[in-house]
Amino acid sequence: MDYSTQIAESLTKIKTSKPIVHHITNYVTMNDCANITLAIGASPIMAFDKNEVEEVVSFSSSLVLNIGTINQSIIEPMIIAGKKANSLNIPVILDPVGVGATKFRYSCVEQLINSIQFSIIKGNMSEIKSISGIKTSSKGIDSDTNNDGAEDILINLALKLKCIVCATGKVDLITDGNLIYACNNGHYNLSRITGTGCMTASLIGAFAAVSKDSLVSTLGGISSMGIAGQVSYRSLALNEGIGSFKVKLFDNIFNLTEEIIKKEVKIYEL
Amino acid sequence: MDYSTQIAESLTKIKTSKPIVHHITNYVTMNDCANITLAIGASPIMAFDKNEVEEVVSFSSSLVLNIGTINQSIIEPMIIAGKKANSLNIPVILDPVGVGATKFRYSCVEQLINSIQFSIIKGNMSEIKSISGIKTSSKGIDSDTNNDGAEDILINLALKLKCIVCATGKVDLITDGNLIYACNNGHYNLSRITGTGCMTASLIGAFAAVSKDSLVSTLGGISSMGIAGQVSYRSLALNEGIGSFKVKLFDNIFNLTEEIIKKEVKIYEL
Amino acid sequence: MDYSTQIAESLTKIKTSKPIVHHITNYVTMNDCANITLAIGASPIMAFDKNEVEEVVSFSSSLVLNIGTINQSIIEPMIIAGKKANSLNIPVILDPVGVGATKFRYSCVEQLINSIQFSIIKGNMSEIKSISGIKTSSKGIDSDTNNDGAEDILINLALKLKCIVCATGKVDLITDGNLIYACNNGHYNLSRITGTGCMTASLIGAFAAVSKDSLVSTLGGISSMGIAGQVSYRSLALNEGIGSFKVKLFDNIFNLTEEIIKKEVKIYEL
Repeated sequence: MDYSTQIAESLTKIKTSKPIVHHITNYVTMNDCANITLAIGASPIMAFDKNEVEEVVSFSSSLVLNIGTINQSIIEPMIIAGKKANSLNIPVILDPVGVGATKFRYSCVEQLINSIQFSIIKGNMSEIKSISGIKTSSKGIDSDTNNDGAEDILINLALKLKCIVCATGKVDLITDGNLIYACNNGHYNLSRITGTGCMTASLIGAFAAVSKDSLVSTLGGISSMGIAGQVSYRSLALNEGIGSFKVKLFDNIFNLTEEIIKKEVKIYEL
Repeated sequence: MDYSTQIAESLTKIKTSKPIVHHITNYVTMNDCANITLAIGASPIMAFDKNEVEEVVSFSSSLVLNIGTINQSIIEPMIIAGKKANSLNIPVILDPVGVGATKFRYSCVEQLINSIQFSIIKGNMSEIKSISGIKTSSKGIDSDTNNDGAEDILINLALKLKCIVCATGKVDLITDGNLIYACNNGHYNLSRITGTGCMTASLIGAFAAVSKDSLVSTLGGISSMGIAGQVSYRSLALNEGIGSFKVKLFDNIFNLTEEIIKKEVKIYEL
Repeated sequence: MDYSTQIAESLTKIKTSKPIVHHITNYVTMNDCANITLAIGASPIMAFDKNEVEEVVSFSSSLVLNIGTINQSIIEPMIIAGKKANSLNIPVILDPVGVGATKFRYSCVEQLINSIQFSIIKGNMSEIKSISGIKTSSKGIDSDTNNDGAEDILINLALKLKCIVCATGKVDLITDGNLIYACNNGHYNLSRITGTGCMTASLIGAFAAVSKDSLVSTLGGISSMGIAGQVSYRSLALNEGIGSFKVKLFDNIFNLTEEIIKKEVKIYEL
């Protein structure tokens, strides 16, 4: 069975079973992450007090950790939630937003990686390089376009951390430590609104909540956002911009079908 | 005077007097709550530091407490604000988001209910059942569709807590402890974006800010959101989804008039 | 060179250099501030943990401090970030949201002003009067329409704090302590969605990130938002309201060009 079929079938599973995706995420895009999770058919819960995260994990089907507005007080709840998820075999997804931007973020991600077994780590190329311990010319939280040696970095990181690693960019690269997959969906406009990266992690969380194959879940989340970006851009009128683009993004994730996925998905093995 | 007339007149009072609605609410839907409060014609203020909540309550006309992303540090300001509101006879509305989901949320709501005299408690059926001390099959923060015995639960809770109790669902039920009212406005799509429940509490807050009759305020907030949901759905194009639906929701609360309310409202006594 | 030309050229500089604008801002409008910063062509970063703000300031081109949901724990990071920005000659913009509403906010702003040299302070007339130590009839966080003596207040404050002072209102007033400028762009609808003030501060931050002339930066941010508001209102259909208006606002900031600025800008010396 090819990947587009597996992704398409997972989409239907999401819509049928409405799994709960627990997020401990940033304040900037929390609302967007909740709405994109609903749009694809899953059910979001945002809970981060250390007194309740274990219970919330227990009735959730996946856990998304995002460090976009990380602060001292949120690390402990993240670790508690992550460990609980590990103990229950619930997949945990890490979005290491801006990890290369400051020493503090780097040390937070170190703590998370040393405490939690992640199923999937998804960042832009700068962030993935940073986690690999490689110096990057990170400029804020934006993407690095220099992909030299990217494939080796991804494979080594996936093997080291025993998880799927995904680096988003003009072409998204995904590896399980064995093969490398490229996803060629997406549109430049996705980088011109805040939160598309965070929302992609939420979509991966929705797929991971219904599939045991983390590679398929990652490809599903990545390609869904990419497809919605392309379709949204196509229908944009001349006088419209990123305000309308963002509205259409939610519409097109909401209206995503097996047929659209099979028709639009552009995933290939490198 | 029937309820639709009282609601319609309250709407005009909101637009004329632009009352301040103080919110201590969750991070996920804070922006939406502020905008829906503005859309109906009132003025939102979001303030939660314990050093200022009493002053903010003093110049506000109602107070909305929402536990959607409750955490240890926000309980104390909520209680300080609620007590101040009680002392000034300012109506306090509770939205117990996900109260049945974790022991922590349950204990937070217990503290709030034991410290503050609420005028109105509005939740979905799972949440209302949970507050009533009844075991529910709560799945995350979503609504319970099992309404068996719902009417008795509502009436008993209203009598026990001496406040209006409202349980949202396919049909919304509202009681003052004496009679039960059903509101049959609304659309399924309202459950497919995040924050419509929270925004409904904000709308109730706006009505409560201009009316001494908490039953009318509850019916006003509930039916306004329901009507906006219906009207928004009707004008949705085939290629639109929850992104566009959410935009239209704000448009239709903004454009709500006495005439639309009188024409669309579906409230009846059970 | 007249101001519209300088603003227009700054806009192009923003789009070319994509400067990073560091925000320590409120939870209500954080997402909108990030998106408006992206819409004009700059790159937002929201970071507020005291362990990382100095590093974030170091790679940023301007810093925006907004007290909309101020709380005890955020004052220290604001002061650390502001001092660092001062030491690096990075412009700092203050948006003193609701400063007159509570003693706590007033004391927070006092601490900020006593610790940080601001380049630009932008508030509504109530807020500017409040900072000047003048009693205002502040009603929540909304604007005061009484402009008697406004020009003297602005000039005195600008001279005292050695910075640009801007008071928004029906007509926006801006001074460098020497001359007073009025900006007559804008539309009433801008006061009917939350966050347009905060977003204006973000736009000022984007201009300040590419220009050494804080007066031009302030005029640029103020007039950009005003123009986008006007253009958005013009294209609003009868059945649309503040939901659609907000979407169009992002579209029109995104589509802003030198030509539109030169054509629409209404700035004059008083």
